[in-house]
Amino acid sequence: MRMTVRIAVAGASGYAGGELLRLLLGHPDVEIGALTAHSSAGDLLLKHQPHLLPLADRRLQDTTAEVLRGHDVVFLALPHGHSAAIAEQLGDDVVVVDCGADHRLTSADDWTRWYGGEHAGSWPYGLPELPGQRDALVGARRVAVPGCYPTVSSLALAPAVGLIEDEVVVVAVSGTSGAGKSLKPNLLGSEVMGSASAYGVGGAHRHTPEISQNLSAVAGRRIAVSFTPVLAPMSRGILATCSAQLKDGADVREAYEKAYADEPFVHLLPEGFWPTTNAVLGSNAVQLQVAVDADLNRLVVVAAVDNLAKGTAGAAVQCMNLALGLPETSGLSTVGVAP
Amino acid sequence: MRMTVRIAVAGASGYAGGELLRLLLGHPDVEIGALTAHSSAGDLLLKHQPHLLPLADRRLQDTTAEVLRGHDVVFLALPHGHSAAIAEQLGDDVVVVDCGADHRLTSADDWTRWYGGEHAGSWPYGLPELPGQRDALVGARRVAVPGCYPTVSSLALAPAVGLIEDEVVVVAVSGTSGAGKSLKPNLLGSEVMGSASAYGVGGAHRHTPEISQNLSAVAGRRIAVSFTPVLAPMSRGILATCSAQLKDGADVREAYEKAYADEPFVHLLPEGFWPTTNAVLGSNAVQLQVAVDADLNRLVVVAAVDNLAKGTAGAAVQCMNLALGLPETSGLSTVGVAP
Amino acid sequence: MRMTVRIAVAGASGYAGGELLRLLLGHPDVEIGALTAHSSAGDLLLKHQPHLLPLADRRLQDTTAEVLRGHDVVFLALPHGHSAAIAEQLGDDVVVVDCGADHRLTSADDWTRWYGGEHAGSWPYGLPELPGQRDALVGARRVAVPGCYPTVSSLALAPAVGLIEDEVVVVAVSGTSGAGKSLKPNLLGSEVMGSASAYGVGGAHRHTPEISQNLSAVAGRRIAVSFTPVLAPMSRGILATCSAQLKDGADVREAYEKAYADEPFVHLLPEGFWPTTNAVLGSNAVQLQVAVDADLNRLVVVAAVDNLAKGTAGAAVQCMNLALGLPETSGLSTVGVAP
Amino acid sequence: MRMTVRIAVAGASGYAGGELLRLLLGHPDVEIGALTAHSSAGDLLLKHQPHLLPLADRRLQDTTAEVLRGHDVVFLALPHGHSAAIAEQLGDDVVVVDCGADHRLTSADDWTRWYGGEHAGSWPYGLPELPGQRDALVGARRVAVPGCYPTVSSLALAPAVGLIEDEVVVVAVSGTSGAGKSLKPNLLGSEVMGSASAYGVGGAHRHTPEISQNLSAVAGRRIAVSFTPVLAPMSRGILATCSAQLKDGADVREAYEKAYADEPFVHLLPEGFWPTTNAVLGSNAVQLQVAVDADLNRLVVVAAVDNLAKGTAGAAVQCMNLALGLPETSGLSTVGVAP
Repeated sequence: MRMTVRIAVAGASGYAGGELLRLLLGHPDVEIGALTAHSSAGDLLLKHQPHLLPLADRRLQDTTAEVLRGHDVVFLALPHGHSAAIAEQLGDDVVVVDCGADHRLTSADDWTRWYGGEHAGSWPYGLPELPGQRDALVGARRVAVPGCYPTVSSLALAPAVGLIEDEVVVVAVSGTSGAGKSLKPNLLGSEVMGSASAYGVGGAHRHTPEISQNLSAVAGRRIAVSFTPVLAPMSRGILATCSAQLKDGADVREAYEKAYADEPFVHLLPEGFWPTTNAVLGSNAVQLQVAVDADLNRLVVVAAVDNLAKGTAGAAVQCMNLALGLPETSGLSTVGVAP
Repeated sequence: MRMTVRIAVAGASGYAGGELLRLLLGHPDVEIGALTAHSSAGDLLLKHQPHLLPLADRRLQDTTAEVLRGHDVVFLALPHGHSAAIAEQLGDDVVVVDCGADHRLTSADDWTRWYGGEHAGSWPYGLPELPGQRDALVGARRVAVPGCYPTVSSLALAPAVGLIEDEVVVVAVSGTSGAGKSLKPNLLGSEVMGSASAYGVGGAHRHTPEISQNLSAVAGRRIAVSFTPVLAPMSRGILATCSAQLKDGADVREAYEKAYADEPFVHLLPEGFWPTTNAVLGSNAVQLQVAVDADLNRLVVVAAVDNLAKGTAGAAVQCMNLALGLPETSGLSTVGVAP
Repeated sequence: MRMTVRIAVAGASGYAGGELLRLLLGHPDVEIGALTAHSSAGDLLLKHQPHLLPLADRRLQDTTAEVLRGHDVVFLALPHGHSAAIAEQLGDDVVVVDCGADHRLTSADDWTRWYGGEHAGSWPYGLPELPGQRDALVGARRVAVPGCYPTVSSLALAPAVGLIEDEVVVVAVSGTSGAGKSLKPNLLGSEVMGSASAYGVGGAHRHTPEISQNLSAVAGRRIAVSFTPVLAPMSRGILATCSAQLKDGADVREAYEKAYADEPFVHLLPEGFWPTTNAVLGSNAVQLQVAVDADLNRLVVVAAVDNLAKGTAGAAVQCMNLALGLPETSGLSTVGVAP
Repeated sequence: MRMTVRIAVAGASGYAGGELLRLLLGHPDVEIGALTAHSSAGDLLLKHQPHLLPLADRRLQDTTAEVLRGHDVVFLALPHGHSAAIAEQLGDDVVVVDCGADHRLTSADDWTRWYGGEHAGSWPYGLPELPGQRDALVGARRVAVPGCYPTVSSLALAPAVGLIEDEVVVVAVSGTSGAGKSLKPNLLGSEVMGSASAYGVGGAHRHTPEISQNLSAVAGRRIAVSFTPVLAPMSRGILATCSAQLKDGADVREAYEKAYADEPFVHLLPEGFWPTTNAVLGSNAVQLQVAVDADLNRLVVVAAVDNLAKGTAGAAVQCMNLALGLPETSGLSTVGVAP
């Protein structure tokens, strides 16, 4: 006999919401309840998510606690600043999985500096592959899903923090879906196709403190992060190139093998193979490869992730599984859609 | 208690083979056996299919009857001309699902004209949504999987053959994976990105007689097909624009609603919605919409399909399900990976 | 001694305006004067046209007759409905080249049906390669630049109108820049990359009557047009597949060779070569190839054009050259930017 | 009265050769002579360069000294290892511009380590924007055109070498045309579209010593380079993210303004603007922007270049201009083809 988990998605008209529903439609234990939106409330879901045929007759409702109440799990795919109030109204028996940023940072000062306003507090951080995090997620009623760049950057560097100096450099090439459905000229197809561009340069991207928080927690000392995101002409995927000065001739590969040997979703590729984003498209896998630049004694790690899947919605489902005591991999896959 | 179906894939290094394995990895009743290739025999599968992590330790074997024997189902994803000989050696108890062209055409003359050489005979045609075809597939031991263009074009026009004149015009925009992994200069990324081009113009594409065969069979009279394929800068997907002169003011929409009301994979979209290829990416769905150009009294049907999924490998799995008496939709989905 | 032509561009923030300026920066006889916009007036041009470095210090002004007056040539790259009033205020000594639709259709009824409102009258039609059009453009003070689809479709079929039946079918695959910088969700990079979609299906696109007008004028009888535009994942370029029933065994190729033998921009490719949109990117060339489907006795013509160049801004420059008595090819090229 | 320069291109079937011809067709002082190739000798040029319509009737000849002799300038766009022998046979009165790697490195040890075999000696290095280089190119009979990555990386960092520590980190996102027309599976459109991947990771790319050579020469001390190239789904363009530890609070922006104030092709963008590769597509411009990460006191420079234009063929034309005493900017533009 199987338990059926009734879920709701707030923010179902966006890319993260759509990906949550795509994954949850394939989850054996989930029944999809209310789907809500803000300005699109009242619309057919199909207008915003034409790929979700099994939900073709669903309409978007308003994002209110009344609508969201009565589900076992509520996924929030909202702009930051909204989740604390909603979560409070839902009560402690509901599992709330927040894909937004509100509860990721543990430092209130960091929150105020990077996002502005008052810190809503931190929730268990949904990256179970980091040391110690999985236990905090088992049975959790609140989960903060990591940012997409912090997911891939943290997993790429965490096994090495004991072997490197205190500063890392991350340049991460991302597809455009990470920017959501914002109607900005620079996100138009005509602008992005055939073009690459950097943004948030010089340490200005809000994911910077989150990466630093993760690596510093693992290291037990402050790890500074130089982070530059680059937009590339693809819808999905992040390829992160992460490097750092090595302290000595430690066996880097061994550290990664050990760290991820038992992880279902993080794969260190065999030597000679390099990650590509289309190999993980739609999947919950992270593909990693490591190299040492012997001339500089510098570690270079390349990691690929689907920003919408393991980078957001896949992680959310993984965390729901942990929170509810389901198999961690239920409804998730390591098989990408390629080519 | 479930049956476990042991399958083999010949041609596992190519795009069709990769897609078969992607789908079969998610099929609840399937166990993946031998994987074979021609020039890549001996390689790690991962070298050719970096997205299939659960098979990361598998090696490709030679494509021989010895290797393929002993499986319940053998999928052939080979260049045309090879399947008859292999099938013969495998015996009648093995279900052979041929993704190649060898057994699609019923006319030996057509075969010789379009492909050259001697006709290997026709097998049950794997498009169960065409009238009468599903029954022929239930329990079949041999299946000819349709070509990708014939699949989408035939489904787009079959419900209308009673309402139209005898000639149809199909212009189908396709992603490049339909051309396989052939190392041709015009398939290089540098050439295809940012560019559209037609090929096989003037009725020269081999899928032309197959479309005509399907529509003529449904119509009970010869339907002539003007078919032009256009390569567009995307990896997957076909968008077919199909038109024909209407005989009279028949209710076209009703004909399509009736034809596909009970089909799990073919979806006539609600009015006002139009198919896009990314809405069906990776899925077994066909999305359709119909319009009538009142000035010309001309029917225009637009249909989207994933050429590798429902256009090839998804159809192959669907046919295996029918052949074995499994639920037709097992291991298949109508949910695309978008955006 | 050379004449210097002082030009202004109204609508300089958009794609057509940007392409006009790109071409005019390379025109030996042109000096660039006022650049105007609507909601972007006051902005640095660089904000909207980051590729126009030589104009990096220019600011956009308001689109008013006062600003535009005092130039020899004024290019209008505005939404339809605005050009008649502006042209009237500029006086007859100024050459006004309208990239919008206002003055393309000769039939007031067609205008009202397809665009609504009152017809502003027709201007000399800027497609000099059509029979009789070039003469009307020499010395003209007003020019209506054709739509991008009508340009490529008319040039693809005009030489054949005497050889075909009265109905043509055009399916034209276009890049997204044809839709301009409109901030619509379906034009976001995340939506268009990897996807093809049709729009204006069933004879609903406004370029339909313009194509019919052109072909009918050349034929001296009504040519009906079934036109379907398809959006493909590329910024620029149109590939049109145009077909029609042939009346008899006329030598189609000869008709095209004769029609375009002396045209500087329209190139019938050698047999065996097929047009691709990247071969004409940024150029004023139209590449054509013809085929006859012998089974159906049907003509199929494939034509490639850059929608922003020969499809809009290049044609506008070509027409300016004709209007002013400059060499027709000044500032224009048949060399595409490929790959 | 103008001088006419008669040029030949060896390697005219490839991407660099095609781009050279595209640019030279627009050069006011150039007449295009022999075009040669290796395995494609005898083919119509149009087969390999369908965008070069003015040369549509040209055929490729064999790459021999006999064919190349008798031109004022010979451009070599060949795999490395071939240029020394050809140049020797051409004599000292011919200007030889080598787009290959043979004569870029000054250190014979570096050559042997990175390319293997014996060093053919170094030629004047074709990056006139580096301190001291322009003078060496004026009147030169031999020019080594820089690699595409070294061009953009060196220009991005050279003005700062006095302000930074001794190690720089460069992650450069590149279009696929940089890899040439090699028929490799990973360069197929189906593989590259929608995907990003790194290669030459860990200091393995041959452009690494060239970047280090350039920066070290400017700095007067050894600058170590961590370089990672990333392939992105676009045909052209490189976006380099370059960073280094700052020594102190020097005014970085001022250093860049000063360095490039009089350069026609290198543009430091106004504050608030960031480079994109499509803004420089087809042009000889380099767009730069600088930022300082105050938390880390780290300089981050982002630079965009067209790898085929300023990154290869444009630089070659620029160097030819300098060698012959023509205006440095003849036949070149800072206007990109966008969107």
